[in-house]
Amino acid sequence: MRPNDRKQEQVRPIKITRNYTAYAEGSVLVEFGDTKVLCNASVEENVPRWLKGKGKGWVTAEYGMLPRATHSRTRREAASGKQGGRTMEIQRLIARSLRAVVDLEAMGEMMVTVDCDVIQADGGTRTASISGASVAMADAFDYLVKEGKLKSNPMKGHVAAVSVGIVDNEARCDLEYVEDSAADTDMNVVMTEDGRMIEIQGTAEGEPFSHEELMDLLALAKQGIADIVKAQKAALAD
Amino acid sequence: MRPNDRKQEQVRPIKITRNYTAYAEGSVLVEFGDTKVLCNASVEENVPRWLKGKGKGWVTAEYGMLPRATHSRTRREAASGKQGGRTMEIQRLIARSLRAVVDLEAMGEMMVTVDCDVIQADGGTRTASISGASVAMADAFDYLVKEGKLKSNPMKGHVAAVSVGIVDNEARCDLEYVEDSAADTDMNVVMTEDGRMIEIQGTAEGEPFSHEELMDLLALAKQGIADIVKAQKAALAD
Amino acid sequence: MRPNDRKQEQVRPIKITRNYTAYAEGSVLVEFGDTKVLCNASVEENVPRWLKGKGKGWVTAEYGMLPRATHSRTRREAASGKQGGRTMEIQRLIARSLRAVVDLEAMGEMMVTVDCDVIQADGGTRTASISGASVAMADAFDYLVKEGKLKSNPMKGHVAAVSVGIVDNEARCDLEYVEDSAADTDMNVVMTEDGRMIEIQGTAEGEPFSHEELMDLLALAKQGIADIVKAQKAALAD
Amino acid sequence: MRPNDRKQEQVRPIKITRNYTAYAEGSVLVEFGDTKVLCNASVEENVPRWLKGKGKGWVTAEYGMLPRATHSRTRREAASGKQGGRTMEIQRLIARSLRAVVDLEAMGEMMVTVDCDVIQADGGTRTASISGASVAMADAFDYLVKEGKLKSNPMKGHVAAVSVGIVDNEARCDLEYVEDSAADTDMNVVMTEDGRMIEIQGTAEGEPFSHEELMDLLALAKQGIADIVKAQKAALAD
Amino acid sequence: MRPNDRKQEQVRPIKITRNYTAYAEGSVLVEFGDTKVLCNASVEENVPRWLKGKGKGWVTAEYGMLPRATHSRTRREAASGKQGGRTMEIQRLIARSLRAVVDLEAMGEMMVTVDCDVIQADGGTRTASISGASVAMADAFDYLVKEGKLKSNPMKGHVAAVSVGIVDNEARCDLEYVEDSAADTDMNVVMTEDGRMIEIQGTAEGEPFSHEELMDLLALAKQGIADIVKAQKAALAD
Amino acid sequence: MRPNDRKQEQVRPIKITRNYTAYAEGSVLVEFGDTKVLCNASVEENVPRWLKGKGKGWVTAEYGMLPRATHSRTRREAASGKQGGRTMEIQRLIARSLRAVVDLEAMGEMMVTVDCDVIQADGGTRTASISGASVAMADAFDYLVKEGKLKSNPMKGHVAAVSVGIVDNEARCDLEYVEDSAADTDMNVVMTEDGRMIEIQGTAEGEPFSHEELMDLLALAKQGIADIVKAQKAALAD
Repeated sequence: MRPNDRKQEQVRPIKITRNYTAYAEGSVLVEFGDTKVLCNASVEENVPRWLKGKGKGWVTAEYGMLPRATHSRTRREAASGKQGGRTMEIQRLIARSLRAVVDLEAMGEMMVTVDCDVIQADGGTRTASISGASVAMADAFDYLVKEGKLKSNPMKGHVAAVSVGIVDNEARCDLEYVEDSAADTDMNVVMTEDGRMIEIQGTAEGEPFSHEELMDLLALAKQGIADIVKAQKAALAD
Repeated sequence: MRPNDRKQEQVRPIKITRNYTAYAEGSVLVEFGDTKVLCNASVEENVPRWLKGKGKGWVTAEYGMLPRATHSRTRREAASGKQGGRTMEIQRLIARSLRAVVDLEAMGEMMVTVDCDVIQADGGTRTASISGASVAMADAFDYLVKEGKLKSNPMKGHVAAVSVGIVDNEARCDLEYVEDSAADTDMNVVMTEDGRMIEIQGTAEGEPFSHEELMDLLALAKQGIADIVKAQKAALAD
Repeated sequence: MRPNDRKQEQVRPIKITRNYTAYAEGSVLVEFGDTKVLCNASVEENVPRWLKGKGKGWVTAEYGMLPRATHSRTRREAASGKQGGRTMEIQRLIARSLRAVVDLEAMGEMMVTVDCDVIQADGGTRTASISGASVAMADAFDYLVKEGKLKSNPMKGHVAAVSVGIVDNEARCDLEYVEDSAADTDMNVVMTEDGRMIEIQGTAEGEPFSHEELMDLLALAKQGIADIVKAQKAALAD
Repeated sequence: MRPNDRKQEQVRPIKITRNYTAYAEGSVLVEFGDTKVLCNASVEENVPRWLKGKGKGWVTAEYGMLPRATHSRTRREAASGKQGGRTMEIQRLIARSLRAVVDLEAMGEMMVTVDCDVIQADGGTRTASISGASVAMADAFDYLVKEGKLKSNPMKGHVAAVSVGIVDNEARCDLEYVEDSAADTDMNVVMTEDGRMIEIQGTAEGEPFSHEELMDLLALAKQGIADIVKAQKAALAD
Repeated sequence: MRPNDRKQEQVRPIKITRNYTAYAEGSVLVEFGDTKVLCNASVEENVPRWLKGKGKGWVTAEYGMLPRATHSRTRREAASGKQGGRTMEIQRLIARSLRAVVDLEAMGEMMVTVDCDVIQADGGTRTASISGASVAMADAFDYLVKEGKLKSNPMKGHVAAVSVGIVDNEARCDLEYVEDSAADTDMNVVMTEDGRMIEIQGTAEGEPFSHEELMDLLALAKQGIADIVKAQKAALAD
Repeated sequence: MRPNDRKQEQVRPIKITRNYTAYAEGSVLVEFGDTKVLCNASVEENVPRWLKGKGKGWVTAEYGMLPRATHSRTRREAASGKQGGRTMEIQRLIARSLRAVVDLEAMGEMMVTVDCDVIQADGGTRTASISGASVAMADAFDYLVKEGKLKSNPMKGHVAAVSVGIVDNEARCDLEYVEDSAADTDMNVVMTEDGRMIEIQGTAEGEPFSHEELMDLLALAKQGIADIVKAQKAALAD
């Protein structure tokens, strides 16, 4: 049995709280069970130097984890003087995922930076980050529309992500920490709301995985992402 | 008039939420009005190398600010590769303040690290950090007592802090951001619950201040800290 | 048509030169067309600190690119003072891929570090690195067997990798640089010699990709990797 | 008794040597007993980027300690690759203190940087630095007046600093190292020549301090600073 | 006897391979016996900021060593976060040597950067680097002439370098690693093709050396460099 | 004519002040004309890790320059976060020079670190550093002898250094800044007191130099170093 009696295909309870902090143009606390990530989208009215004068915008992301988001305290990256490889990998993934659903040309020369800071980590922080960041970014673009700085929201749809994996020979959706650390295969899938893929990253932690197992995981991911997109839409409808 | 019609000597509404996150031995969200700081106390059963074998413990602190805790986005210190001077100054102040109320001998060779991460900043983040960290540390010590690792809580009492300043020629207690940035003199005071001083740090931002002004500020600080200690005790009594 | 008249499923000419340098326990120059990577496997008779005393070994990897491996000069990472996010991502991928085919318990407390340094880059440097590193690591283990330090080679089989992608609406295997930079979807696949998957990392650079496209890419990858494994075996048979 | 039979309120012998080095626009070696700090003021005819075009100037400071200024050798900060928290705190304090006595508008777009490098440390290096830097800065401004680049010296008066503390239950002025390390309370006070306060920073190293003790310390500081200002004026009168 | 029966004055077999990689404007693999260095010259059509607008060019160099160029693995400088003192010393030497034979005025506002990356190290990597870099730079300038960006090659002649030393009381030319590590005195000499000196750097590793020994070493260096210049000319004549 | 009417072979006035600071086991202010370097030798009763247990000692050196030792202010290396290539080159040279005159076996497992900090720079800071450091090191060893920690001073003799160069077609000894920046050839020579060479480093800044010019420079260096050794001996005789 899974923890909390979850079914194989069942995502954890999802909670998306908008306007969580006061200053960011989009501010979302996203919770996937006990995983809690604060996603703050900030707007700047200029672009990175290499993009200046090209008439298009940019979306980027940064990722961090509070030192005690984890079971035992993790060293603060600001204190150690650099961001680790895992952090860089994750923030590059979040940024690519967000850009995949934005019409950068339609943004004009503006930049959105989404900071995803993990308050509490129980597995799936990168997928929760992407899913929450999509909502925060939507709010930031709506702010720009309301302010008259954009004619319309340049997002082509939502983007959401989920982790899937093989634990105890069973394919499961939205792994929490105890599952994740016991998984033979761990895969993160990022999709658009219409079910097309933006990223898949699958890793055999133990035994290599077969084509059939991959098919099972993809099916679970598709279902899970549909549930997350539902939660995103509900949050934005409030 | 002060913002929100506060009186000269009135601190902002204080809210202290214990057990805010799941893993830290002490986890407190402290709110001084719109300033919100997450204070997580972590216990380690060893001490820094330079203290090994001396039979006494250590308390330290780290301070950080989420990039969008502020009105406009601040660069992430982990990304810039070092902690700034302001961060270092604040975390050294928090750590000294906490150690001043702990009997380090009675701790044995254990270490408590309190991470103060600012979720939202509206002035007074260092004083809110100290005041919240005291409660988080108290919970961490109580945890050690419950686990049988300490005979009794080695804290000698509470420590709390408040900022006071001279704004528009008026001495005021617990400045919020708009007041802080307009203040001629800004002072942070850290006291024990019995009203003795642990730290005072006063700075003339504009005109130098006189002995009389200092006396006024100290009186306000004493009153404000008494109110904060009351809130700390109420939170721990829950 | 593809550059050099390659067919959709055709990998570039593969050349694997063993003993390329004199000192490394395994030293391989791998060429996938114009992409040239020097893979040097170094043996150390101890393990990282966190693994000491556990009776098992470790395999790790580092990746670098000579400044003028690329069309225009890239800044030297040693001079800029840190490894970029892309470098870290790649070297973590290489290391995971190699570990997936090694029985770490059977290694005893030894460590193999494979340095993959790109001499010339024409797309697919990470997949060439993995494919060459597998051969260099095999030589390093054989060296340890010959020296009497291991009873038998602890590799469970070869590991190889290839990039596949969708270019001009066509799925293609082993993209070279001009294809890679024009691809809508780019995917790196790492497999064992028996065709099971160790890693898949697919990214939509332009339009999101469908399930069918993913299936096409996986089929190409499987075929390409079989060809690479053939070249690895031939090289080791010399 | 205090070391060297000093009385409670007595500062150490103060020696201020102007034109100590040849190139700086203001160059002062300040000695408070065995504490020796070289204060070099450098003029630049531009301002930091964030101040450009605002028609006002800036004063900043840097602080360093030669590795063997201390009883046992301290690691060189340039070799360790960063300035420690203590260094940053001190140089920020020096800079704020200096700016408090300068009319930045009257400076025009110029910058003065005062480097305070401790040659020998016997307690009170930050207060000696401030006191010496004030004289070096005065010389630098006089240089600018002589060169015709400023109409008049934009300093509003002298700034001086002293440390006071409670040692063996006695309030004392201008602590030297053996006193400082035995002090229960340690306070640095920065004042203008007319006795108004620019900074006070008091820390309870042992027991918290009472209001009465604070009053005693402030009285000592006022007296000590008056003596230092006398020495500054005498030095500039030479 | 020397290793490989070399005579006292004999340099190792020299091999200079031009166009070793595909993209650099000049690309040379230089081999002095088992020492192999890849020298890639890159052209940029601008100059460092401090040289802008002065109508002259610049030549610079960077030096690196692959981690397993050496008998045991050396830590990667990009991973340790900085270039060591030895690396900096060598790349400054290479750059100065190259600039000594270039008419920087005649270059116009262009920059040539030569990357010298050691593939395999058996002593004399800095002298091989200089000798190979001279050929790579010559090719880069010829490229600029062919492209019509320079009227003529601004090199005033070749520059070459050799190490000489005293081993077992015998002066020897072009030391290989086993000789170098046993040498009492080690000297690197950089000369123009007409035998004038650009740099000499001699170090007593053991006993100080006499004037007579220095004379012997200089005579050997002159002869060795003549041989290297012959090889450079032969390579460029192909 | 040379500045200050110096003759071609004449070194600047040399002043060596021992016991310049209070805590270092050897503390020397060395002045070569307007170049002033503080050389502090510190003793530690252990050796670097790689030397532990071998029964021999180590001598090392660090070099720094105060920001305003130069005509215009130089950026503080501690603030920029790393030591530059020039600094590293110089401190490696100083350390090698000092080790050349010490019997490391006779030191036992002790370490001497000499910090050379330039207070004022007018050319020749590295040669002044070496010459002053030799005296500071001698004092540190004498201290160890007096403390009964060494039987006798392990120095084999003095080491001294001077810069020589070709300025206006004239060979000159002990260049000051205006000469150094106009020199065609610049050479630093380090010798033992008996006139044998430890290091020579000659660089053609403009035209390459001939064998004859080198001979002239070496003769001047020998004479200059004899004068410096005389000053060292006189200082130690006081």
